[in-house]
Amino acid sequence: MTTLSDCQQRDARDPLRQLRALFSLPPGVIYLDGNSLGALPRSAAARVASAVTQEWGDGLVRSWNSAGWYDMPRRLGDKIARLVGASRGTVVATDTTSINLYKVLSAALTIAAQDTAQRKLVVSERSNFPTDLYIAQALCRERGYRLQLVDAQQIDAQLLADTAVLMLTHVNYRTGAMFDMQAVTAAAHQAGCLVVWDLAHSAGAVPVALEAADADFAVGCGYKYLNGGPGAPAFVWVNPRHTDRFWQPLAGWFGHAAPFAFTPDYQPAQGIARYLCGTQPILSMTALECGLDSVLAAQDCVPGQDAMAALRAKSLALTDLFIALVEQRCAGHGLELVTPRAHASRGSQVSLARREGAYAIVQALIARGVIGDFRAGAAGEPGQPASADILRFGMAPLYVGFADVWQAVEQLREIMDSGAWRSAEFNQKQAVT
Amino acid sequence: MTTLSDCQQRDARDPLRQLRALFSLPPGVIYLDGNSLGALPRSAAARVASAVTQEWGDGLVRSWNSAGWYDMPRRLGDKIARLVGASRGTVVATDTTSINLYKVLSAALTIAAQDTAQRKLVVSERSNFPTDLYIAQALCRERGYRLQLVDAQQIDAQLLADTAVLMLTHVNYRTGAMFDMQAVTAAAHQAGCLVVWDLAHSAGAVPVALEAADADFAVGCGYKYLNGGPGAPAFVWVNPRHTDRFWQPLAGWFGHAAPFAFTPDYQPAQGIARYLCGTQPILSMTALECGLDSVLAAQDCVPGQDAMAALRAKSLALTDLFIALVEQRCAGHGLELVTPRAHASRGSQVSLARREGAYAIVQALIARGVIGDFRAGAAGEPGQPASADILRFGMAPLYVGFADVWQAVEQLREIMDSGAWRSAEFNQKQAVT
Repeated sequence: MTTLSDCQQRDARDPLRQLRALFSLPPGVIYLDGNSLGALPRSAAARVASAVTQEWGDGLVRSWNSAGWYDMPRRLGDKIARLVGASRGTVVATDTTSINLYKVLSAALTIAAQDTAQRKLVVSERSNFPTDLYIAQALCRERGYRLQLVDAQQIDAQLLADTAVLMLTHVNYRTGAMFDMQAVTAAAHQAGCLVVWDLAHSAGAVPVALEAADADFAVGCGYKYLNGGPGAPAFVWVNPRHTDRFWQPLAGWFGHAAPFAFTPDYQPAQGIARYLCGTQPILSMTALECGLDSVLAAQDCVPGQDAMAALRAKSLALTDLFIALVEQRCAGHGLELVTPRAHASRGSQVSLARREGAYAIVQALIARGVIGDFRAGAAGEPGQPASADILRFGMAPLYVGFADVWQAVEQLREIMDSGAWRSAEFNQKQAVT
Repeated sequence: MTTLSDCQQRDARDPLRQLRALFSLPPGVIYLDGNSLGALPRSAAARVASAVTQEWGDGLVRSWNSAGWYDMPRRLGDKIARLVGASRGTVVATDTTSINLYKVLSAALTIAAQDTAQRKLVVSERSNFPTDLYIAQALCRERGYRLQLVDAQQIDAQLLADTAVLMLTHVNYRTGAMFDMQAVTAAAHQAGCLVVWDLAHSAGAVPVALEAADADFAVGCGYKYLNGGPGAPAFVWVNPRHTDRFWQPLAGWFGHAAPFAFTPDYQPAQGIARYLCGTQPILSMTALECGLDSVLAAQDCVPGQDAMAALRAKSLALTDLFIALVEQRCAGHGLELVTPRAHASRGSQVSLARREGAYAIVQALIARGVIGDFRAGAAGEPGQPASADILRFGMAPLYVGFADVWQAVEQLREIMDSGAWRSAEFNQKQAVT
C-alpha cells in the first residue's frame, strides 16, 4: 500500500516542486480542476495591476505602441508555439477557441474543396467537446457538408476516404483519452483528408508536436493548463503550407496586411496574422502571458528535458498514483476508471464513472476542499445508450503534488465509506457547474 | 473672444463636473482621445484586482457561479441597453465589434434573402471604418453579394430599392459626422431593405434610440466612450422581431439553449443569448463593467435628464467651444473643419483637416500633453481624389472640461504660430499610431 509518507517523499524529490510557489492557491484547497480553469500565477496580480494603472491609466492610447499591446497576439503566440511543437510566427493568441475553430474549419473546408471537391463529409468524435460540434454543425449547414459523429475506434481508412475534414480534440474532455496525433494525422493524409486538432486539454498538459506530426490546423484554450485566467484568449495555429491559401472569413482589421493604412479593401496579412480579426482584450491577454510564463518556467528544471517533457513525466506519475490509490483505497464503491491506463493514450486527468451520485460526490469533495468537477453523461442519441456521469480530476503538474493526490483520494475514500455524499446538501444541483 | 476665465466659470457651473473625479488621468495631460481608448475609471483598479486575486485566485472555477462570471455578458448587456435605447434582455457584451458585425451581417443577409431574394447588394459608406468594410467584403464574397461603397449623400431611395442590407456607422470615425438614425432607417425600410448600425463612436457619446428608430441590428465598441479598457469586449443588439429567425453562424456553446447540458446537437437559445459564442475574457469584462458604471453615473446629475441626454448637452457645448476657439485663435493656419456644424449631424468629436503636417502637429500636441490623434487620408479609389489627413479630437464629456478645451486650443495655437510642428522629432512616423 502506498502511504502518505511515500507521497511526501516523492514530493521532496520532485524536481518541479519549486514551481508550486509560482501559484497562489487558497489554503486548505487541493485543486484538481486546472483542466477547467488553471490556477492563478502569483505574477498575474502585479502584472495586471500595472496594465490597468500604468499602461491604461497613465499610458492611455499611447500604450498600443509603448506597452507592446499591439504585438501581444504574436508575442504570446510565439510562447505558445514552444509548447505545442510549432515554429515562431505560426501561432497567434486571440479570440475564443470556438471562434478560432470557425476560422480554421472554414479554411480547411475551402482548401479541401479545392483538392477533393466531391467529398462532403466532416467527421468528428461523438464525445468531442460540444462547442466544437456546434461550430462544425453550423458551418456544415452553411456550406452544404454533412457532420458525421463516430466513436474513436470507427475512424478508419474507409471512413476517411469519404471525408473532407477530420476534426478531433486531442485529449477528450470527459474521459482523458488521448489520440496519437502523428498516427491519426498520417492516416488521414494517406486517405486524402485534412485534420483539425483542438488542443484545449493538451496545451500545457502533454507534449504536442504539431509540426512533427505534420498536422494541418490547430486551436486551443488559454485558461486551462495554460493558466491564463477566466476566459483567457485562445490560440490558433495553421500549417504554413496552408496559411496563405485562404482568407479566413472573419476578415477584420488586425488580420489586414496593413491595419493602420485604413484602406477600404481587405488585403490579408501574410502568415498567421491573417487569423487575427478585431482588437484583443488586453487585460485578459496580460494575465494569459503570466500563465504562459508559468508553464515555460518548467524549462531547465530537469536537465536535458524541455518544459513539456518534464511536465509530462510528472503528470503521468500523478495520474498513475491517483489511479493506484483509488483502486487500493476506494475499491467496491462503484467507481469505474474510464481514462485509459496506457500512458500513450492518456492526457493529464483521471475520470471515474459512477452510475449514481457522481454529482453529489464531487460536491462533497468540494466541501472538503478537494476541487474536481462533474460532467453529466450525454443523453444517448437514438439507438445509443446514455453515457455515465463522470467525476473528473485534472492533474496540473505545475502545482499539484503527490501528497495532494494522496489527500484527495483519502477524502474520496471517507466520503464513499461513510456515505456522506448521500446528504441532501450535496444533491441540489446549481444552474451552472 | 472667449477667455480661459470664461471656460473656468463654465466648468464651475457644469453639473457633470463632479464625474471627472471618477477617472484617473495622468497629471498634465488633456485627454482628447477617448474616442480611441476611453480613460481609466478609478474603480477599475480595485475591481480588477479583486477579480484576479479573490475571484480567480481564491474562488477558482467556483466563481463561474459565485462571482457571477457566467451572467456577465447579459448583465453588462443590460447596462449597455440603457445607453442605446434598447430593452433589457436585448443586448449582450461579447467578443469584438468585428466579430459581432459578422454575426449580425450574416443574420441580416439570411433574413433579407428570405424577404427579397433577388437583391444582391450590400451598401455601405465609402469612409466607414475599414474593419466594417473588410468583414462585409469577406461575407459578400462568401455569400455571393456585391459590396457597394458610396458617399453618404448617395444613399437614396433608388439605391436602396436594389439593396438587401444597408450597413452604416452611426458616427463617422474620421469626420465625426452623424447619420439621422431614425430617418435613414425609415427610408431603408420604406425601400424594403434592412439596416445594420455600428455604434462604435456613438455608445456613451450621443443618445441612441435603437428601438424608437426601429433599427434592425446594431453592434458597438466597449473601449471608446464606454471606458471599458484596452480591447474591452464589444456588444451586439438585435431587434427582437429578428432575433429568433436565424442561427448566427458562430454557434458556440454560450449561445446554446442549455450550454451545460453538453448535448451534441446545437439548439440556439431564445433571444439575444444566441449571439454569444465562446467563453468571455472575464478580467477585461470586469473592467468594462466599471466603464459602463462610469457612464451611467451621469444619471441624475441634471434633474429631468437621463445620463445620455446630460452627456450630450455637455458634449455639444464642448465641441461648439472647440470649433469656436480654433476659428478665433488658429485662423489662417490651414486647419479646415470637417465635422458638421449642425448639432443633429455631429458626434462627440471635432476633426480638422490639413493638407500638410497633420501627423506632426498631433505629435507636437502630444509632446505638450494634449492627446488627440491622427488619421491618414484614405488613398483615392480609381477616379477619386485622396481625402485629407485628419487631426481628431474626441470630447468625452465625462472627463473633459471647458478649460481643458481652452488649453488644448492654446497649445495648438502656439504650435501653429511658432511652426514648432516642423521639427524633425515630430515628423518620424511610428509603425503603429
